[in-house]
Amino acid sequence: VPPGHDLLLTTDLLTEGIHFDTATASWRDIGYKAAVSNFSDIAAMGGRARHVVVSIALPPDMDQDAVFALYAGLAEACRRAGAVLVGGDTSASRGGLFISLAVTGVVRSGRALRRDGARAGNDLYVTGTLGDAAAGLALLRRSVFVRPAHRHILIGRHLRPSARLDIGQRLVRNRLATAAIDLSDGLSGDVRHVCRASGVGVEIELDALPVSAATRAYAAAAGLRPAELALAGGEDYELLFTARPRHRMALERLAGRGLKITRIGVIRPRAFGLKLRDGGALRPLPLISYEHFRSGRAGQPRGRR
Amino acid sequence: VPPGHDLLLTTDLLTEGIHFDTATASWRDIGYKAAVSNFSDIAAMGGRARHVVVSIALPPDMDQDAVFALYAGLAEACRRAGAVLVGGDTSASRGGLFISLAVTGVVRSGRALRRDGARAGNDLYVTGTLGDAAAGLALLRRSVFVRPAHRHILIGRHLRPSARLDIGQRLVRNRLATAAIDLSDGLSGDVRHVCRASGVGVEIELDALPVSAATRAYAAAAGLRPAELALAGGEDYELLFTARPRHRMALERLAGRGLKITRIGVIRPRAFGLKLRDGGALRPLPLISYEHFRSGRAGQPRGRR
Repeated sequence: VPPGHDLLLTTDLLTEGIHFDTATASWRDIGYKAAVSNFSDIAAMGGRARHVVVSIALPPDMDQDAVFALYAGLAEACRRAGAVLVGGDTSASRGGLFISLAVTGVVRSGRALRRDGARAGNDLYVTGTLGDAAAGLALLRRSVFVRPAHRHILIGRHLRPSARLDIGQRLVRNRLATAAIDLSDGLSGDVRHVCRASGVGVEIELDALPVSAATRAYAAAAGLRPAELALAGGEDYELLFTARPRHRMALERLAGRGLKITRIGVIRPRAFGLKLRDGGALRPLPLISYEHFRSGRAGQPRGRR
Repeated sequence: VPPGHDLLLTTDLLTEGIHFDTATASWRDIGYKAAVSNFSDIAAMGGRARHVVVSIALPPDMDQDAVFALYAGLAEACRRAGAVLVGGDTSASRGGLFISLAVTGVVRSGRALRRDGARAGNDLYVTGTLGDAAAGLALLRRSVFVRPAHRHILIGRHLRPSARLDIGQRLVRNRLATAAIDLSDGLSGDVRHVCRASGVGVEIELDALPVSAATRAYAAAAGLRPAELALAGGEDYELLFTARPRHRMALERLAGRGLKITRIGVIRPRAFGLKLRDGGALRPLPLISYEHFRSGRAGQPRGRR
């Protein structure tokens, strides 16, 4: 750990039949995504990823090529994140495959983004577009026609998400965010973690949610409302963060340099509650995050607790 | 990480039916041991344990009391090790229970004990006594009569092992060891990791292996040779280390202060191979470590890879 920096430590577990499904993802994809879901936690703290250890429980029928492919996916994600896989533990499993990673990161001392820093009057932002990964997973499962170009984008967003390490680091460097979290469960679930930790309410503007052309096309074909996909869809691994209104210009400049950043609402006092502005109406924010303890079914989109 | 120190990072995975069995261990014991097996890796590097994150995959039928008990065991082991449980990830499991911990530690810069430092002519040592945990597990499974006092000791060594953090730190502080590993798989398996990493051979004196009175009693009752239990028995979580002969006196003084330290052999050149001196005869060191990929059966003693 360099002088003047804090150490970050995070862990994330993926289990077969709950977090991934070998019917819709290759072993390489699974390894890649296991790593990204951890790097995304480091990104949400504004850190740089450093070292990775991995624990894998292998079912007896898993062949060596599958194990190599899994590690190749892990290694690819580590390389992209600038992290180094330094070791791990492999064991037999009597259930399916389990992969747990732990990742260390570093961030300037005292600057790590947390969930508890949001204040009433802060703006609420997300990076990128929402709902793409959920649409991609749905396309792998159900026969819905969308143009090949859109299909390719959406499935890529599901199988090969990106951790927003760069934007997290820029938020820290420029002291632009008051709180942050990564969107793994889906916006409507993850925003609650920030509100609970910070002791605040929130008002989200439904029409402001950033939805890609590909997800709009999928929603049209599947008969869904795009904004609902954006609210509920998990595993986009975008960042949700809060910032003071005086930083709007700075955030626009930041966004201009690469990834899109969209203002989607405002932090309210706790007594306001969690609300969604849908056209003229204000209604309670629905909890449509997919919770794997409730759904239980293999291959369902699901969140982490 | 304090100035002048290196960061250590380790991970270890326990899976139900492979590493533990709810028929012979309470949830609290299982949580405790999951943490100790990780702290033992830090001990083998001569470090202090600092922070812990835990990933747990819970089967649907696991009740809340069991989860609390598991965490209580984790917390107890963390408290004893002076480590802090800082977070984790909980998920559903469609197989059994899986627990993966990652632990950070610190050690004076450049001083971490490794597996690759053993040199021909070094002495080989172990802490404590060997085979107790294996005897304890056997007692939980089979009906073998030994005195209640011995039974209590052996089962305690199986369910509630200790990580040798203190002795590892003293080896580092006094620069007494050239290489070290913790005994999780069993002596006959773990010594191979040191020999392979260091490019050396080894000669182990069978009669020198430290065996407790309790394990001698179990061996007598079960018709086993105590030294075989000491060679093969996994999960003692004692330290195996190598040291220069000029440090014999210093190591005796170190041992006098608490935990027993026993010289059990000598490191030989690689061409010598791995040998066991049994009375007058020198024979190849048998591999009687329990490998879970081979045994496969639930509840078998097994190692980590």
